[in-house]
Amino acid sequence: MVATDKIFSDFQEHSVAEFFKKNKQMLGFAGKTRSLTTIVHEYVTNSLDACEEAGMLPEITVVIAEIEKNNSYRVRVEDNGPGIPKKHLGKALGMMLAGTKFHRYAQQRGQQGIGAAGCTMYAQLTTGKPVRVVSHYDKKRIECTISIDFKTNQPNIETSAEEDTDGSEHGLVVDGEFADVKYDKSAYGVYEYIKRTAMANPHATITFAAPDGENLKFPRSVEEVPPKPKAVQPHPMGLSTHDIIDYAHHDAQSTRISSFLQNSFTRVSSEKVKELQAIANEVDFSKKPSELEWAEAEKIVKAIGKVKWIAPATESIVPIGKRQIEKSLGGILKPQFLEVSERSPKIYKGGIPFVIEVAIAYGGDAGRNSENGGSGKSGDIIRYANRAPLIFDAAGCALTQAVKEIDWKRYGIKRFEEEPVTVFVNIASVHVPYTGAGKQAISDEEEVTAEIKNTVMEVARRMQHYLHEIIKEKDRAGRRKVVERYLKQLSIDLADLAEKGKASELEEKMKKLIENKYPSLMGEGDEEGENGNGGNGKGEKEER
Amino acid sequence: MVATDKIFSDFQEHSVAEFFKKNKQMLGFAGKTRSLTTIVHEYVTNSLDACEEAGMLPEITVVIAEIEKNNSYRVRVEDNGPGIPKKHLGKALGMMLAGTKFHRYAQQRGQQGIGAAGCTMYAQLTTGKPVRVVSHYDKKRIECTISIDFKTNQPNIETSAEEDTDGSEHGLVVDGEFADVKYDKSAYGVYEYIKRTAMANPHATITFAAPDGENLKFPRSVEEVPPKPKAVQPHPMGLSTHDIIDYAHHDAQSTRISSFLQNSFTRVSSEKVKELQAIANEVDFSKKPSELEWAEAEKIVKAIGKVKWIAPATESIVPIGKRQIEKSLGGILKPQFLEVSERSPKIYKGGIPFVIEVAIAYGGDAGRNSENGGSGKSGDIIRYANRAPLIFDAAGCALTQAVKEIDWKRYGIKRFEEEPVTVFVNIASVHVPYTGAGKQAISDEEEVTAEIKNTVMEVARRMQHYLHEIIKEKDRAGRRKVVERYLKQLSIDLADLAEKGKASELEEKMKKLIENKYPSLMGEGDEEGENGNGGNGKGEKEER
Repeated sequence: MVATDKIFSDFQEHSVAEFFKKNKQMLGFAGKTRSLTTIVHEYVTNSLDACEEAGMLPEITVVIAEIEKNNSYRVRVEDNGPGIPKKHLGKALGMMLAGTKFHRYAQQRGQQGIGAAGCTMYAQLTTGKPVRVVSHYDKKRIECTISIDFKTNQPNIETSAEEDTDGSEHGLVVDGEFADVKYDKSAYGVYEYIKRTAMANPHATITFAAPDGENLKFPRSVEEVPPKPKAVQPHPMGLSTHDIIDYAHHDAQSTRISSFLQNSFTRVSSEKVKELQAIANEVDFSKKPSELEWAEAEKIVKAIGKVKWIAPATESIVPIGKRQIEKSLGGILKPQFLEVSERSPKIYKGGIPFVIEVAIAYGGDAGRNSENGGSGKSGDIIRYANRAPLIFDAAGCALTQAVKEIDWKRYGIKRFEEEPVTVFVNIASVHVPYTGAGKQAISDEEEVTAEIKNTVMEVARRMQHYLHEIIKEKDRAGRRKVVERYLKQLSIDLADLAEKGKASELEEKMKKLIENKYPSLMGEGDEEGENGNGGNGKGEKEER
Repeated sequence: MVATDKIFSDFQEHSVAEFFKKNKQMLGFAGKTRSLTTIVHEYVTNSLDACEEAGMLPEITVVIAEIEKNNSYRVRVEDNGPGIPKKHLGKALGMMLAGTKFHRYAQQRGQQGIGAAGCTMYAQLTTGKPVRVVSHYDKKRIECTISIDFKTNQPNIETSAEEDTDGSEHGLVVDGEFADVKYDKSAYGVYEYIKRTAMANPHATITFAAPDGENLKFPRSVEEVPPKPKAVQPHPMGLSTHDIIDYAHHDAQSTRISSFLQNSFTRVSSEKVKELQAIANEVDFSKKPSELEWAEAEKIVKAIGKVKWIAPATESIVPIGKRQIEKSLGGILKPQFLEVSERSPKIYKGGIPFVIEVAIAYGGDAGRNSENGGSGKSGDIIRYANRAPLIFDAAGCALTQAVKEIDWKRYGIKRFEEEPVTVFVNIASVHVPYTGAGKQAISDEEEVTAEIKNTVMEVARRMQHYLHEIIKEKDRAGRRKVVERYLKQLSIDLADLAEKGKASELEEKMKKLIENKYPSLMGEGDEEGENGNGGNGKGEKEER
């Protein structure tokens, strides 16, 4: 046996901050352009979430400026949200896996409590500087710098000013310096990111001052705050044995399993508890939740599967809405055709509600400019999760895959890659199944993928009618052109063969014939031959 | 201002175990087949790492059995490695982000300290049971069960037996029960996973007892333990300002920056320190490392960029090796053509060494069976990172993308999707840039992607010569066949036109003509007309 003591002398524990410091790419810090987009993404989604949760119409200002002397960028994001109280400020921006969203069962853009702290990490790693924060919360104004101690995943907060206010101002300003980032106007850059955010958030006003001096403003096109997503209790259908045990053992209030079930989950009435008890009759529903055992919980799960349930509450899901998407895409893409789905929420993994929203825009500014720089367009898929744009990892995303698997030919799109078409897909859910902590792609959950396909197909069918009309029209126009092209010569030849001089009369007659066959198209045809003199050629030579 | 106190009353901190419990899909627990493969993957890679680190030829046994009564599977993985000492056993299997590998700068399959603890988590979540472990380490045998406390990310270990041994036995057995998993023989299943592991680890013997009763054994085809990957110090070229600060502030031994640089990084001689000092002359190299400031470290990084360095030590990188890959793929795929690259290590992000190994196999059992069940083959890409197969997330993986972006037509492959070709790619590195904690795809690092393409093209060029010969041959055979098909009839017709009865003689003459034009192909042709009588025709009519 070899000496292996040395191997284990290295045994260590690490903090989650150390993990993501070493694996920055998992948070989206891979490549300079992507890293800058990730920073803006994390701050802007937090701002939107905060405003909506407080029931305010978001006003967000993003300023990016280049600091030439050391090759870095300053990123400043300001919102008019509620701000963050002093007590939580350090952890919200300087500790990973801390926040208000992680355990809440409500639809929000953020759901992990990693993003903003990840940006603080990236500032420290690339410029050695903490982020500067100003928070107006309640009647306080706090100014501070925040950094992370990677070893412990604890925030370092240094308050530089703290004062009382009249409470009229509110909101958060985060301001950091970052190197190893780059601003560009590619499809992966901040510019595109903000444009896409505006598309899916017509209730927000977003202002962007770019480092190249450009100033953009996307004013809101809708004046209503979206309904506040309600935090809901889980639906029984989505529970695993472990979940039930977990909830039961952490329930300090309920004295019996029967009341625990009613208190902890949605749609569980006392009637339903009776039904469950009748099926899982070996389980003593009067015992304490803390004493529930695995085998018993397993029986409850089985019973849940046999009872009829009202579908999960869907007030936790707030889609963008058909009218909002129409306004927003209509204004930005000015397409010839635009259709938006409007479907009811579905459920995945048995209990997690979600809604898929799809819009298809055709013509106008729809589609993506072809990469070879020509004037050609190619089909574009723009993806969102809870209204936040997904820019990266398209190839590994279930949204992309579902759209690509559609047989577009059936819907009048010969080659998706070569048509001026934009497919807009948003998934709204209390828990979006991201493939990674960077939150840029959706995992392939069977029910989600199926619903995306169905929704796209539904909208595509409506587009098909439209395209069909265009094609028919084009077809008719094409055929008529061909006939007309030969009309005059044919008339001459025929007249020549029949009776000299009557060509123009013959042409007139045939024109009428065509007119009857392709009615909608007359009018703009060329005027030649109108008062034409009958010509006569011999034409004989051409015959054979 | 609305009341937002309620929002923050929810503020919580969470453990990394809770995070991955809620986001299981990020560890590869998404879908039943994939989940089972993930479990086997984590245990087998740990076993291989352990054996190699101890300098032993790995003997690994995987047993999967279905437990019908509760729809779960038992997975047992046994190895002949060094085992794990009692002190570390709980944390190694019951705590996330703990282990020996995270901070070590050496090539290993595992690098995060999450995988095995993730499997323990999955056992708990799906069956409520801890994993059972037997460890023979040194002269001890320990038998215990291990689970995770999710709230704290701390292991629960219950030892059921502990005894002294003579030390002749060594190794680890992990044995867990998992539900929400499925065994199948698809391209994503355990069967394929183990086959691919065997392909890239010809020094390991792997035995697999499948739940369908099948017993597989992949005996080693190579009797040498691969050279033990050495842990190396980082190369200066890969250091960021933050890295230097971080190393400096944690260096308790060195008394000056000059000695710190020599002690902490590879290739830094006292000569090099002098060169650096000459360039970064504002920095006081005699001060304590703990006092190094950001601006100073920044100057050192700039100086590093200006000095000429010997390339990073590459003894930390252990490729599989050309001969080993030939033996292994040759044996398993029995291809008509097989070529393996043999390139020197390259560097990414300035300082992380890696090697790309590519093999292309054509014909025989190479390629993937077409999905429509026909006998057709399609091109297959099999991916590895440090010899561990990457089975999932192919679309989002830089290895796949690099191979797909090759213009295969240039190398004689008309459509990659329709040819019996297997492209084998392995990346060996001290730090593999995975896109996620599930370690199934490689992030698109510029230098890595470029090297993959170059390596594939290098091997593809050699294949091209081979395919070119085949195509030429086929082409010749094809043309000859066409000519021959008409030969007889043509002879008859010509002869008929010229002089009756001479057809066979004419045919003979023409055959000779073809023979001269397509020499290599004669022999197997049909024998008709062999003893034909001579003919001669005028052929004039055919002229114009």
